[in-house]
Amino acid sequence: MDSAANPKKAVPTPEQDTAWKNYVEDFRGAGHETVEWIARYFNNVADLPVLAKVKPGELLDALPASAPELGESYAAMLSDFDRIIMPAVTQWNHPRFFAYFACTGSAPAILGEMLAAALNTNGLHWKTSPAVAELETRTLDWLRQWMGLPAGWFGIIYDTASTSSMHAIVAAREMVAPEARREGNPPGLVLYTSEQSHSSIEKGAIAVGIGQNNVRKVPVDADFRMRPDALAAMIEQDKAAGKRPFCVVAAVGTTSTTSVDPVPQIADIAEKHGLWLHVDAAYAGAAAIVPEHRYILNGAERAHSLVVNAHKWLLTPIDLSVFYTRRPDILRRAFSLVPEYLQPQGDPRAHDLMDYGVPLGHRFRALKLWFVMRYFGREKVEALLRSHIEWARRLADLIDADPRFERVAPVPLSVVCFRYKGTDEDNKAIVDKVNASEKFFIAYTVLHGKVTLRLAIGNLATTWEDVHEAWKLIQGAVST
Amino acid sequence: MDSAANPKKAVPTPEQDTAWKNYVEDFRGAGHETVEWIARYFNNVADLPVLAKVKPGELLDALPASAPELGESYAAMLSDFDRIIMPAVTQWNHPRFFAYFACTGSAPAILGEMLAAALNTNGLHWKTSPAVAELETRTLDWLRQWMGLPAGWFGIIYDTASTSSMHAIVAAREMVAPEARREGNPPGLVLYTSEQSHSSIEKGAIAVGIGQNNVRKVPVDADFRMRPDALAAMIEQDKAAGKRPFCVVAAVGTTSTTSVDPVPQIADIAEKHGLWLHVDAAYAGAAAIVPEHRYILNGAERAHSLVVNAHKWLLTPIDLSVFYTRRPDILRRAFSLVPEYLQPQGDPRAHDLMDYGVPLGHRFRALKLWFVMRYFGREKVEALLRSHIEWARRLADLIDADPRFERVAPVPLSVVCFRYKGTDEDNKAIVDKVNASEKFFIAYTVLHGKVTLRLAIGNLATTWEDVHEAWKLIQGAVST
Repeated sequence: MDSAANPKKAVPTPEQDTAWKNYVEDFRGAGHETVEWIARYFNNVADLPVLAKVKPGELLDALPASAPELGESYAAMLSDFDRIIMPAVTQWNHPRFFAYFACTGSAPAILGEMLAAALNTNGLHWKTSPAVAELETRTLDWLRQWMGLPAGWFGIIYDTASTSSMHAIVAAREMVAPEARREGNPPGLVLYTSEQSHSSIEKGAIAVGIGQNNVRKVPVDADFRMRPDALAAMIEQDKAAGKRPFCVVAAVGTTSTTSVDPVPQIADIAEKHGLWLHVDAAYAGAAAIVPEHRYILNGAERAHSLVVNAHKWLLTPIDLSVFYTRRPDILRRAFSLVPEYLQPQGDPRAHDLMDYGVPLGHRFRALKLWFVMRYFGREKVEALLRSHIEWARRLADLIDADPRFERVAPVPLSVVCFRYKGTDEDNKAIVDKVNASEKFFIAYTVLHGKVTLRLAIGNLATTWEDVHEAWKLIQGAVST
Repeated sequence: MDSAANPKKAVPTPEQDTAWKNYVEDFRGAGHETVEWIARYFNNVADLPVLAKVKPGELLDALPASAPELGESYAAMLSDFDRIIMPAVTQWNHPRFFAYFACTGSAPAILGEMLAAALNTNGLHWKTSPAVAELETRTLDWLRQWMGLPAGWFGIIYDTASTSSMHAIVAAREMVAPEARREGNPPGLVLYTSEQSHSSIEKGAIAVGIGQNNVRKVPVDADFRMRPDALAAMIEQDKAAGKRPFCVVAAVGTTSTTSVDPVPQIADIAEKHGLWLHVDAAYAGAAAIVPEHRYILNGAERAHSLVVNAHKWLLTPIDLSVFYTRRPDILRRAFSLVPEYLQPQGDPRAHDLMDYGVPLGHRFRALKLWFVMRYFGREKVEALLRSHIEWARRLADLIDADPRFERVAPVPLSVVCFRYKGTDEDNKAIVDKVNASEKFFIAYTVLHGKVTLRLAIGNLATTWEDVHEAWKLIQGAVST
């Protein structure tokens, strides 16, 4: 069959008016149906099991082994979505999802994703879509103001905090060991972060060729905060041994307990030794929007970079990780490689996003954040975050009042770490019982070597009642 | 003001029935309106200017300097989107977008993005959303079959091809120099790629600490394909000098001319010297779906990894880059770092996507690809790609028939490189004139040191008439 000699039109196009009209009309029908589906989902999600109940491989086996030869109808696809996919979805948008960091795929953001997908515009370069670069600049400047960060900081969106932090590590290397760009990593580069910091810091250091042995895990104090004295001592020791300290990553809101490292003291040390200071505020940074909690970013104005994820506590669906730096010049020096076929624009206001990171293509992610910030406004976001923090405080009080339980960490934000005063197995059994109820999803962590329950508040639809019910279920799950 | 003591409910919740109902009803209204907007866009996009006409800073200045204090209406947001944002959008979904690699944000994918945003589910871990891991596995296996790649290859989705290729480089290092994970990069690692390969390879090598000086740009033949003899000689020379060759990146479809490197011969050399072979088929890999063009992936079955972007020629909006590897064990060894709070599931069918790369969070991207593959089916995708390739061939014939022009590279796929037989300035002037018409967007590249026009076909709505009109405009733009 010499098909190339007989080109068939593959799909409806404007040339084939009827076929294209059908393509668009079909979309209209399915699009409206999907809007209705989402509206029903918003109204019913609280009744769905939070955790998917499928067994490993169950969905895989339910899906055909091969893709269809001929196109299928939207009706078939949406029906399968409901019937096969949904039971395998863990409902992160459920008001009783209390695991990891609770988050929200909010309504205005969905519109942003719809439009971004339809336009499919790509801001690798200023001129390839000025809207991508400029809306991103403006929206991230809005968020910078909300968080009380210094004017002039440069913001860019990457997919996840892991990616943002990896970029921070590369920028740090560019500042301290600029020869690495041409010659590869010199020996002896050392990075510092606390033993409570997120695994992505270590992973980033591995990826960029620093190596695990050169990641120093600085000890923490009783409240899980990095000890500046220990940091200073480690740096001195490494320098004495001929190493090259180049980066320190402070956490504002560690993953287990949301502890806040003492950034001002860490900044002193970083400045003294010429290290790049990166602040990982992926979850907690949002809390700075609440005036009485702005203190968590004290000292962050002295950082070289900071990451905060809009897709954690800022009502924006994954993925949207915001990376700020006061040294975009260094970030650009680390990553810019402009090939002939992507000539720069030349105008200082027309910066090319591809010059500031690994990914060349740049999705129009700013659109959903713009919609979120406009739809809710600062006041509502502030009030929402304040409620979450208040409820965590209230839960902590209830835990403190029950002698069978103990809290294991302070509660500066919306995450509570506590344990039943029994064995690790007792505590794991509580988690299992709570999650088996299908009504809640909580996770556990390990603190001071012990299994610790962890309840994270962060969804838009969550109420105090949801938190309280979880606590009552936890109390009832104690084996007596 | 002690707001914490007087928590206000920030936003509507199910507890506050009316407010939540309003939240959902508002979304319904705006959602339906957005579906209608997109339907109109599909019908009218061909009439919009392809390139945004704004000046640098124009959109930035049109947006308020600060985010609103109080929430705004969807009506205001959508009106501003139309009025302020749209003029700054370059229309990548336009049938006459012929720059870079033309691509499509297709209708079924929009539904996938809507649902993914609403669920906001995150497949970092199998249990955090089995649907994410398993639909990704199944869908990428479907695509593997369409492309005729070997059974058993492991697939994972990253954001862009740049990120995929960076992961390939890290996996290559893990295979050849596994000590790097703990100790950091050893000296002397060398990577090979052709002088026509995409800048992301060099950027990836910089990011992971290999260094630009250790990226060998292998010369190409007259048709812009990597010369295996030159590759072999460079490797021998480096080994003789005590270097450690570890990775070769072959391009199937280079960025400028879509030339196809001789993968079988490169695989021979990679095997002889124990190098990881990565195939960058970001754009061209899709063409393997067309039986008579499957040859472009000959030899790729011997590669360790391969990247193909669904968001290039496979009807899926950005971002969705597919990374295949036959050595997921090495990829996992390079990246897995399982912290206590993210315990593994233990079941061999329940793999955790976070173990296979830098990003921890994992968006439900597979959903849009699943919808695209089902909606179009293999037959329509095949026919569409065949048409694009045929039209490129037809355009090449027209160019060859006009003595004022010359083709500069073969046309194996849907991109045509050619030039007016004049100065670089003459050719740039043609590009400027064509783009200033607002009806087309073409780009140029530099080949054999000369400015070369480049027309890329790849959008769903494009017809032969669109390509032909572009050619007539180019002919007319010759300064006489």
